[in-house]
Amino acid sequence: MTKRVYNFYAGPATLPLPALEQAQHDLLNYNNSGMSVMELSHRSKEYDAIHQDASNLVRTLMKVSDEYQILWLQGGASTQFFMVPQNLQIKGKPMEYVNTGVWSKKAIKEAKLYGDVTVVASSEDKSFSYIPNYIAFSDNAAFAHITGNNTIYGTEFFSTPKTPSEVPLVCDMSSNIMDKVIDVKKYGAIYAGAQKNIGPAGVTLLIVRKDLLERVPENVPTMQKWSTHAAKDSLFNTPPCWSIYMCKLCLDHLKKQGGVSAIETINRKKAQLLYDVIDSSNGFYKGHAQPDSRSLMNVTFNLPTPELEVQCIEEGKQRGLIGLKGHRSIGGMRASIYNAMTVEGVKTLTEFLEEFQEKHQ
Amino acid sequence: MTKRVYNFYAGPATLPLPALEQAQHDLLNYNNSGMSVMELSHRSKEYDAIHQDASNLVRTLMKVSDEYQILWLQGGASTQFFMVPQNLQIKGKPMEYVNTGVWSKKAIKEAKLYGDVTVVASSEDKSFSYIPNYIAFSDNAAFAHITGNNTIYGTEFFSTPKTPSEVPLVCDMSSNIMDKVIDVKKYGAIYAGAQKNIGPAGVTLLIVRKDLLERVPENVPTMQKWSTHAAKDSLFNTPPCWSIYMCKLCLDHLKKQGGVSAIETINRKKAQLLYDVIDSSNGFYKGHAQPDSRSLMNVTFNLPTPELEVQCIEEGKQRGLIGLKGHRSIGGMRASIYNAMTVEGVKTLTEFLEEFQEKHQ
Repeated sequence: MTKRVYNFYAGPATLPLPALEQAQHDLLNYNNSGMSVMELSHRSKEYDAIHQDASNLVRTLMKVSDEYQILWLQGGASTQFFMVPQNLQIKGKPMEYVNTGVWSKKAIKEAKLYGDVTVVASSEDKSFSYIPNYIAFSDNAAFAHITGNNTIYGTEFFSTPKTPSEVPLVCDMSSNIMDKVIDVKKYGAIYAGAQKNIGPAGVTLLIVRKDLLERVPENVPTMQKWSTHAAKDSLFNTPPCWSIYMCKLCLDHLKKQGGVSAIETINRKKAQLLYDVIDSSNGFYKGHAQPDSRSLMNVTFNLPTPELEVQCIEEGKQRGLIGLKGHRSIGGMRASIYNAMTVEGVKTLTEFLEEFQEKHQ
Repeated sequence: MTKRVYNFYAGPATLPLPALEQAQHDLLNYNNSGMSVMELSHRSKEYDAIHQDASNLVRTLMKVSDEYQILWLQGGASTQFFMVPQNLQIKGKPMEYVNTGVWSKKAIKEAKLYGDVTVVASSEDKSFSYIPNYIAFSDNAAFAHITGNNTIYGTEFFSTPKTPSEVPLVCDMSSNIMDKVIDVKKYGAIYAGAQKNIGPAGVTLLIVRKDLLERVPENVPTMQKWSTHAAKDSLFNTPPCWSIYMCKLCLDHLKKQGGVSAIETINRKKAQLLYDVIDSSNGFYKGHAQPDSRSLMNVTFNLPTPELEVQCIEEGKQRGLIGLKGHRSIGGMRASIYNAMTVEGVKTLTEFLEEFQEKHQ
């Protein structure tokens, strides 16, 4: 058996080894039920306990109050791009978006199907290399929308933009959910595809303020109403049971590590290790994001030539450092260092990058 | 370790043991990649091979021609209930449905959001205990829709209703996909949540005639257009990779068993064993479905009293026969005997039912 590699994929991404080991151990016989989790009826008491545990872990880890509902949905953040306007639109009021990259643009495109969209701030002028400051949402907006972390460009929001009191802030946290402590009360809704920071692909976490569930127009398809899923605790139809189970195991592990504030400390250390290599490389490694907008989750950088980038990615792969190719829209390299990536993995990468520079500069 | 039970849940349901064993074996290190399948980027060559294999297995097992596209979607059949009309509606033309139970009714409800729906046949007059004969769809319909198998009532279509040549037939095969040989060419679109017959929850198979992909109106959200997913081979956004992988393993196993015609023989034998117990019980076990409409997948029956039903379910459980409680809408008992249920499992159940009758009649 080959040993496990260090996996820097942007998502689906590396998962905590203890969670995978538990899943493997229980795969044929979960909790002495004589069945796999994949075989449990979603109406069984065994599955129900998993489902409740997963939601309770989100509540505990993010300190989510009872004012909010926790939902497990399908279809990825891409589905929330249209479900957000579908559920939160108010006739005659604009929907206000901040454009910080490809995923913001996709969200904006879907919102336009539902009414007027205003882009109140954008970092497109500088290849999305920064997070705009001084974002002003209007009093009249139906809702405000930001992308918490931009996987492709490697930028991240570190403070929560203020919205007028009647305007709920919606955030796509697909690539940075639980990477650092945030105050959920500042948000109307938070959504996140699980496959980067909290589990495998196939399930989307939604945390939504309960009063906002009432907004949805009557003629929206049943499955597209957040309220449908809220009324049945995400069991209106068969949920993606296995993916939710894996989220539970990953969140269990996060809790054992000390929760979100402990992982924030680790994440800051991991990111610092990599940004230090970039900053002390005398320009051999050139970071894409401006320093004050640098993501804790996705470190994006270029080498002096595309040829060296290809070589670096290839040599990394031979050393068991997988998934370092940057997104095609900006090229170069990207190290995605989500919650499940260990400090040891990042150190192995930084040592490799330093050696590579030594040899090739 | 408790031995594995016989699982008669209506879905999620029992899966083939060899598929589960393979998944367990490879969980930490798929194909010497040093990663779990859950950790593979959906853009990696390892995942791509899984994705293609799963689609090719569907194509081979169901003899699907190149005129059709195979898609892996999210959100269950419940999501297809509105995506079918959204993608296939034609302004001014009615959508024609056959109502054979709860799932048909849910599909009808969603279609009504998109235009005129005609229910051309229904078995509601007799508690959905039969499949209507002589179904006549009109030349003018945008499409025709049937529910291939009715999990709750235990009825199943054994012949494909004819539609006028211009009217595509759409079928929800969530609970009987690949249970018997069908001629795909008779259908415009077939959809099925995977979690009963071909895999775990979290993925929906869609087989759709390619010319029908062009019908969808421009203003439909990107994720709701079948054409979006067809253009990117179900990789427009992150697919539910693990669920698709499990489908591949389950379909591999089906192929090794001899494919759909071989499993049809086994399924007919399994169903016959159970219906024989019912028919020879002198009315102790009373089947819900009329004999010519009896499902190969869900055998539904009542006992003389609700108390005996509770007792039978409980004693079954103690013998390792799980999930025999009927759906709340008709009560009684239900044995779901999908492709992965073995003849041995069904025999264990029939022996138990015969003993139970012996003791209690």
